[in-house]
Amino acid sequence: MAPRKVLLDCDPGIDDAFAIAFGCGHPGLELCGITTVAGNVSLDRTTHNALAVLEFLGHGEVPVAAGSPAPLLRPFEDARDVHGESGLGAARLPAPRGRPVDTHAVDFLIEQIAAAPGELTLVAIGPLTNVALAVRRYPPLVTQVADFVIMGGSAGRGNVTPAAEFNIWCDPEAAAIVFGAGWRVTMAGLDVTHQALATAETKDRMRGLGPLADELLLPGLRGYGGTSTRGGQPVHDVCALALIAAPGLFGCEPARVEVETQGRWTAGMTVTDFAAPASGHNALVAMSVEVAGFWDLVLGAWQRVSAVMARR
Amino acid sequence: MAPRKVLLDCDPGIDDAFAIAFGCGHPGLELCGITTVAGNVSLDRTTHNALAVLEFLGHGEVPVAAGSPAPLLRPFEDARDVHGESGLGAARLPAPRGRPVDTHAVDFLIEQIAAAPGELTLVAIGPLTNVALAVRRYPPLVTQVADFVIMGGSAGRGNVTPAAEFNIWCDPEAAAIVFGAGWRVTMAGLDVTHQALATAETKDRMRGLGPLADELLLPGLRGYGGTSTRGGQPVHDVCALALIAAPGLFGCEPARVEVETQGRWTAGMTVTDFAAPASGHNALVAMSVEVAGFWDLVLGAWQRVSAVMARR
Amino acid sequence: MAPRKVLLDCDPGIDDAFAIAFGCGHPGLELCGITTVAGNVSLDRTTHNALAVLEFLGHGEVPVAAGSPAPLLRPFEDARDVHGESGLGAARLPAPRGRPVDTHAVDFLIEQIAAAPGELTLVAIGPLTNVALAVRRYPPLVTQVADFVIMGGSAGRGNVTPAAEFNIWCDPEAAAIVFGAGWRVTMAGLDVTHQALATAETKDRMRGLGPLADELLLPGLRGYGGTSTRGGQPVHDVCALALIAAPGLFGCEPARVEVETQGRWTAGMTVTDFAAPASGHNALVAMSVEVAGFWDLVLGAWQRVSAVMARR
Amino acid sequence: MAPRKVLLDCDPGIDDAFAIAFGCGHPGLELCGITTVAGNVSLDRTTHNALAVLEFLGHGEVPVAAGSPAPLLRPFEDARDVHGESGLGAARLPAPRGRPVDTHAVDFLIEQIAAAPGELTLVAIGPLTNVALAVRRYPPLVTQVADFVIMGGSAGRGNVTPAAEFNIWCDPEAAAIVFGAGWRVTMAGLDVTHQALATAETKDRMRGLGPLADELLLPGLRGYGGTSTRGGQPVHDVCALALIAAPGLFGCEPARVEVETQGRWTAGMTVTDFAAPASGHNALVAMSVEVAGFWDLVLGAWQRVSAVMARR
Repeated sequence: MAPRKVLLDCDPGIDDAFAIAFGCGHPGLELCGITTVAGNVSLDRTTHNALAVLEFLGHGEVPVAAGSPAPLLRPFEDARDVHGESGLGAARLPAPRGRPVDTHAVDFLIEQIAAAPGELTLVAIGPLTNVALAVRRYPPLVTQVADFVIMGGSAGRGNVTPAAEFNIWCDPEAAAIVFGAGWRVTMAGLDVTHQALATAETKDRMRGLGPLADELLLPGLRGYGGTSTRGGQPVHDVCALALIAAPGLFGCEPARVEVETQGRWTAGMTVTDFAAPASGHNALVAMSVEVAGFWDLVLGAWQRVSAVMARR
Repeated sequence: MAPRKVLLDCDPGIDDAFAIAFGCGHPGLELCGITTVAGNVSLDRTTHNALAVLEFLGHGEVPVAAGSPAPLLRPFEDARDVHGESGLGAARLPAPRGRPVDTHAVDFLIEQIAAAPGELTLVAIGPLTNVALAVRRYPPLVTQVADFVIMGGSAGRGNVTPAAEFNIWCDPEAAAIVFGAGWRVTMAGLDVTHQALATAETKDRMRGLGPLADELLLPGLRGYGGTSTRGGQPVHDVCALALIAAPGLFGCEPARVEVETQGRWTAGMTVTDFAAPASGHNALVAMSVEVAGFWDLVLGAWQRVSAVMARR
Repeated sequence: MAPRKVLLDCDPGIDDAFAIAFGCGHPGLELCGITTVAGNVSLDRTTHNALAVLEFLGHGEVPVAAGSPAPLLRPFEDARDVHGESGLGAARLPAPRGRPVDTHAVDFLIEQIAAAPGELTLVAIGPLTNVALAVRRYPPLVTQVADFVIMGGSAGRGNVTPAAEFNIWCDPEAAAIVFGAGWRVTMAGLDVTHQALATAETKDRMRGLGPLADELLLPGLRGYGGTSTRGGQPVHDVCALALIAAPGLFGCEPARVEVETQGRWTAGMTVTDFAAPASGHNALVAMSVEVAGFWDLVLGAWQRVSAVMARR
Repeated sequence: MAPRKVLLDCDPGIDDAFAIAFGCGHPGLELCGITTVAGNVSLDRTTHNALAVLEFLGHGEVPVAAGSPAPLLRPFEDARDVHGESGLGAARLPAPRGRPVDTHAVDFLIEQIAAAPGELTLVAIGPLTNVALAVRRYPPLVTQVADFVIMGGSAGRGNVTPAAEFNIWCDPEAAAIVFGAGWRVTMAGLDVTHQALATAETKDRMRGLGPLADELLLPGLRGYGGTSTRGGQPVHDVCALALIAAPGLFGCEPARVEVETQGRWTAGMTVTDFAAPASGHNALVAMSVEVAGFWDLVLGAWQRVSAVMARR
């Protein structure tokens, strides 16, 4: 079977970098382009990091298009407390030689998807600003993607606030546009990313991965502030791509998701109604994941990247 | 040790009736008065039911004071779909002979608590309208109760909406007043009430309880609509009194709880921040319960009531 | 014709003091009691000022009941920038010898009105906290007042914010309760109070009023910060009592008034819909006033007070 | 002096048609392009009407670019009750022969403005959806326009609700983006459009304008539902272009304008703070207009259009 062609909208970010590495390594995925957005760090930084990570992985050929420097309505607040000043924790990658393409991320998404209707899967693992602008600027986009998957939100509690997950909280209005755009959003949120934790044992398994582990994965996890839980560290964004590569690993439930934009304490919450009538379903919410299988999948993909890197 | 004197603000309601039976039966509790509020059913009905249940249990001496017929700001919406037209499911109790006292519930609470500072524990298991009016009308109340416990809210998902539990959702502004009044609210919400479920086995154990079971508990559970989950049926309100009678059964965590009053999709949510600084803590949130011990406790109390009823 | 019996709920406040003087002087009004609320200054201060003003005017017999020290849900923010530290601008009245009654303002209002249904006109010229608590604690109050008049709100622009008038902005939730309580609210807001301005000529006319002018009115106006407009200074609260004493001076229009409690920039706005169907009318909004007649009325009442003061 | 080059974003709409006629006729303006948005009627209809009006006026050469079919977050609600099914009241223009350009309105605005920085004045007289998408997609736009003028909003009362004017109410989030984008918005809102009314005398003066009056202006006004006031009918959108053509006719005041997006009763209100510090000013709000001069200006421009139409 031909690999799934993927456009990745992201804000690298430690876990975004991990996801890019997964996307480059898994044989079932073909990373066709990356668009960047302000989120974990500033747009300049996320664009720089996207280019640097791709070149580090030997995939400098993947085009990167820079997008929105701030949310639609709200002031931009980054997450440098979690991802470090550089956005990549303690990882120190060489500065990229390449440059982003001249096209704006929103136009890039529209052009790519309109040029190959039904062929591209859009995966958004940062704030949804670019995607919101794209679907409002070009509404047919929602029927022309093969699939749309996000890392973001939660059917339960949040992380940046008790109610909201970071990506949705950053730009709740964009998320409200995206969830209301008329397509089905597959949502890999905290419900699963807080299950698929990187444990001490996972880190042991990473150690065989050469420079990929030594220069990106392990220093990334070391610098990944404020996210460790009792059981390990989440690698949020990886889950969205893993869900495309191996949907059988995830248990998903249809639901109506509304994004709260009005609350004083709840802005950015993905209010998830599993009891909504089927006619109102706008999302497929990942609620469970086979953790062992997940890590086998992820480490396998990273192993392939590592092997390619070694061959250069 | 002398029993804990309890004032119970409630909206019977099936699980309120169960809680009253528990309060009458547990030797560590002394039910000193009941105040009623519109909630599960209308104020007329909750007042009628409070009187009827007390007389059925042989405790017609407990004074009942009627209170607020509607929330502070929002239109009143009952839960007859859950509790039935009468509010007591399929239970059919004799009409009460007694009458509520002439004092309004808000004045009753203020008078009782002000007359015995530090002696009375206030337990609120319905919408918080009466309690909000009482603390605004008489602010010293918050320092004059021995303790304040509610059944309501959730640190996770809701029941009446994905975000909100029924009692808080009914009157979010009242709940916001109550949580912000300067005391510590012990919150027995869905986090524990969805653990302490009445199972088929629990019902088997009820069957020996004579008329208490045959005329109140079992028909109550039969008519308790929309609440059964995979594991059994919750008996929400009982948890609040059980937590007073046997605090050791519950695992509680301090937190900052804010009640959302502004959200479009989240009004009435109890946004629970366990990571808030201790100086901001306003609640003690029950997060776990020893289920077997809970049912031993509850069935024991009901057994005592049943024995007293039989002796009459 | 017998004078109109008036209960005055207020937060003195310079213009509240002016209104009390008007109420004591106009032959068509009988001031039967004053209740106080936090607003222009703290509750302690407004209660002190109410007593001091009454004694200064020779009406220490009017009972004063202290009420709510803070709004229902919001933190208390006073208006000392407008009314001065004491709340009475540059006026320096003797400390009162009397004390407030032992009854809380909310209970006082309920008791007085319930004891003489249809006889008392309730006039509220501060934040509506006390009135809201009274109507929620005792709903029949709304049919037992002869009339209900407020100084507050605006059908146009606000004063404390571009959208909101101070009294409503202080406690929007209380105002929402009051406007939704099922009675007709006569609203003398900025629409008329910004017309009935005290000009230089008005002040000249005050000068003949002896100690009333020299010790209260003129120093009050001198210290009345931030309120002068091109045409003169408003004496807001006086308008509400003037409207009762001489309704013919005011042009009023029926409307539906909703109080905004959710807005980020508009909390406390009285959204006034003159085009609402008559069935939805809940207010009579004063939109015009005969200014010359108003000042003749007000100065006449103050003249009578002054004469009584001189005779002592 | 060379005429001001104008890009007009609009939703024709009767008064939009009047504004287009004004823009075609005034010698100080050069209409360089029209972009359309859903508002008074659907996008299909506003685009059709823009083309039809231009051809009727003999200006089919002006490019028309179709834009957003719905607001950013809210469901689309048109104003057919005001503008009629066709959007042009009782006017019946021939179907246009031309077609909109292939470029989306948002791209058209960006391309035109980026191609001639500092030369184009952007005038938006419909909901601000297109403009919001343009400034978020291409932030430098705000420094590259020569000026930015809207018809929309009000410093006082609204029209579609007591608090909000129609254009802003349609898409409050877009308006919030636009007012917060970092440029100065010149706002010609209801404060002036409700002054510059078309009276019976104005209509008499129109009657000499030939087919322009007989087929567009007069049937437009006849069908302009729900807008007549005591003094005449507003021609809202004309004011925005008149303000550019003859700024001296208007009295404008600097202010901070915030768009309410959260209110229950006030969504879409332009909360206008004239007392804000100068550093916070983001708008220049037209508050007065010389009405006689306005109509001389407008009728003069229409006369020129009429003369050109007659010569064909």
